[in-house]
Amino acid sequence: MVAYNFSKDYPWIKSPLIVSAPMMNITMASLATAVSLKGGIGFLAAGFDTSHLDNDLEEAAKLIRNHEPPIQSQDGVLPIGVGFQNWGSDLKLAVAAVKKFVPAAVWFFAPRHLSDLLPWAKAMREVTAQKTKVWVQVGSVAEAMEVATTLQPDVLVIQGSDAGGHGLQRSAGLITLLPEVAQSLEERGVEIPLIAGGGIVNGRGMAAAFALGAHGVTMGTRFLAAEEAIISKGYQREVLRATDGGVSTVRTKIYDVTRKILDWPEAYDGRGIVNRTYQDHKAGMPDPENVALYGEAMEQGDQAWGPEGRMTTYAGTGVGLVTEVQSVAAILEELWTGCEKTLYQTSKTCFP
Amino acid sequence: MVAYNFSKDYPWIKSPLIVSAPMMNITMASLATAVSLKGGIGFLAAGFDTSHLDNDLEEAAKLIRNHEPPIQSQDGVLPIGVGFQNWGSDLKLAVAAVKKFVPAAVWFFAPRHLSDLLPWAKAMREVTAQKTKVWVQVGSVAEAMEVATTLQPDVLVIQGSDAGGHGLQRSAGLITLLPEVAQSLEERGVEIPLIAGGGIVNGRGMAAAFALGAHGVTMGTRFLAAEEAIISKGYQREVLRATDGGVSTVRTKIYDVTRKILDWPEAYDGRGIVNRTYQDHKAGMPDPENVALYGEAMEQGDQAWGPEGRMTTYAGTGVGLVTEVQSVAAILEELWTGCEKTLYQTSKTCFP
Repeated sequence: MVAYNFSKDYPWIKSPLIVSAPMMNITMASLATAVSLKGGIGFLAAGFDTSHLDNDLEEAAKLIRNHEPPIQSQDGVLPIGVGFQNWGSDLKLAVAAVKKFVPAAVWFFAPRHLSDLLPWAKAMREVTAQKTKVWVQVGSVAEAMEVATTLQPDVLVIQGSDAGGHGLQRSAGLITLLPEVAQSLEERGVEIPLIAGGGIVNGRGMAAAFALGAHGVTMGTRFLAAEEAIISKGYQREVLRATDGGVSTVRTKIYDVTRKILDWPEAYDGRGIVNRTYQDHKAGMPDPENVALYGEAMEQGDQAWGPEGRMTTYAGTGVGLVTEVQSVAAILEELWTGCEKTLYQTSKTCFP
Repeated sequence: MVAYNFSKDYPWIKSPLIVSAPMMNITMASLATAVSLKGGIGFLAAGFDTSHLDNDLEEAAKLIRNHEPPIQSQDGVLPIGVGFQNWGSDLKLAVAAVKKFVPAAVWFFAPRHLSDLLPWAKAMREVTAQKTKVWVQVGSVAEAMEVATTLQPDVLVIQGSDAGGHGLQRSAGLITLLPEVAQSLEERGVEIPLIAGGGIVNGRGMAAAFALGAHGVTMGTRFLAAEEAIISKGYQREVLRATDGGVSTVRTKIYDVTRKILDWPEAYDGRGIVNRTYQDHKAGMPDPENVALYGEAMEQGDQAWGPEGRMTTYAGTGVGLVTEVQSVAAILEELWTGCEKTLYQTSKTCFP
């Protein structure tokens, strides 16, 4: 890991950098602002439908404005980020909202083609006089190199295969992806800070990510159990229940099918906890029947989650390490303390 | 990571512990002894056909015996390990060889049922008066807990999804699997040292594994590029060529099919570099045709490896980090130095 001074662009943060990932419908104003107010960077999820973004940012701006003591942010910059699923997002709506609220960063993810991001980056930089930083999420070394050289993002988010929710079907864990990206950038003489995500849940995972070459870490699954998350009880209960994520979660497209979100680029699928939908799909149930049963399950409320339920529980392989609902403040504190303790003890034990 | 004193059982080792994984037909006497002689623990691969084991151990014993200065080993103990693919191995032959040579450890992997390992562990302990330690490889939290409580192994080898060659089809990366296993053992009050494998290729990966809770690390893919490996030029060239292992490798059963090794337990597949065999399989080629083409390719020598070739190149997602052929001595030195440097720098940068 090379030191990288994030506090120039994000003056309120504590070191090392912790970021909450944008999770559609879940990491909204309450969670994103809580993370930033406690010294991380919270990303509000715009998802693929940008029509509500203006409202959501208004709510976030109010939470930030009303907080005492005020957060230390650059002049006119809203100290949170916004995450897009670019394959479905409307550029004009997105630019209008970003221009109005000037979030500290935008996070691009899953465009149909990486080159589709070029006008997005250009527009965001122009309308905010580069106050809004451009983060781009990638899932392979090849993607990282292409984005680094064509778009020159302010940050690359490196997603490993253990991540929950959507990601590349074909991918590697952070343990190999992250050092290979770092090494490939170094060989090309390109300096871009790397934020690692995918399986980081606690201080141990954080310490590992930094050892692998990260300059900051991002987490989704862990924040599913944040008090500030907008999440149904059924979903959150499943996250607390599930263990052994390599076995209890699976990468699949069937959850997109039943949710009727059919426009994800082909290379992507999503990791979620195995449930009845997946089991039936694997056993050969035709999609229309599975879709219909999902529709019925939607009427059942929280009981529709679980191994025999049909509501989707996107989560990463680290789900077994998430065992209690905590405030964002408690989560961040535990992460920083755990990471520091891990690094200290590991060093001392390995090389006494 | 909790300190664990391996030097009681393996008095020749340096800290932290590096282990070369048993890779069938590749990590034979030359590589296994080189690793132990340089301060790691080398495992000779018995594979699933134990009929050659006696000969192979004889060769290893000779290499150890003839080495100057002599290696520091317990009385009568051969300072290497032996790795079995238990689903196909003959217990009687294995026990006879282990009794005769008393390797420092046996490494069990892929039994049809975990309970099949109980007579193996009992026999090995009996015939060597427990001088030969019992290591068991697992790929999930559930497997780890079952083995820990029923068999009480001396070591658990924890295999993450980034590993090359055979492993559980459904698995997590070390970044979540390792801390969850460590935590689950701790909650049960069980103390067994954990050796982590799957995507560890360099000092960064090593440091990450220790941060995640490992007491030692094991590597396969990195040792494919060891001078002491028994490996065809075509295979080794592919390992050096391939990059971006999340994309360039894949988990599949088709390589077992073409190699006519059909008796692996159902839960296992193997990770190898994508080649013509896999592409044809994915495009719908019937297995018998693929098998026949593989048979023809076997006549072509080293040129039969590569993206358009048909010979199997088992390798982990870390293959892009393996870029040169080195001696075992150079590999181990680079790993120890890299790990120490990584831990020092990471600590200093994260918490200045």
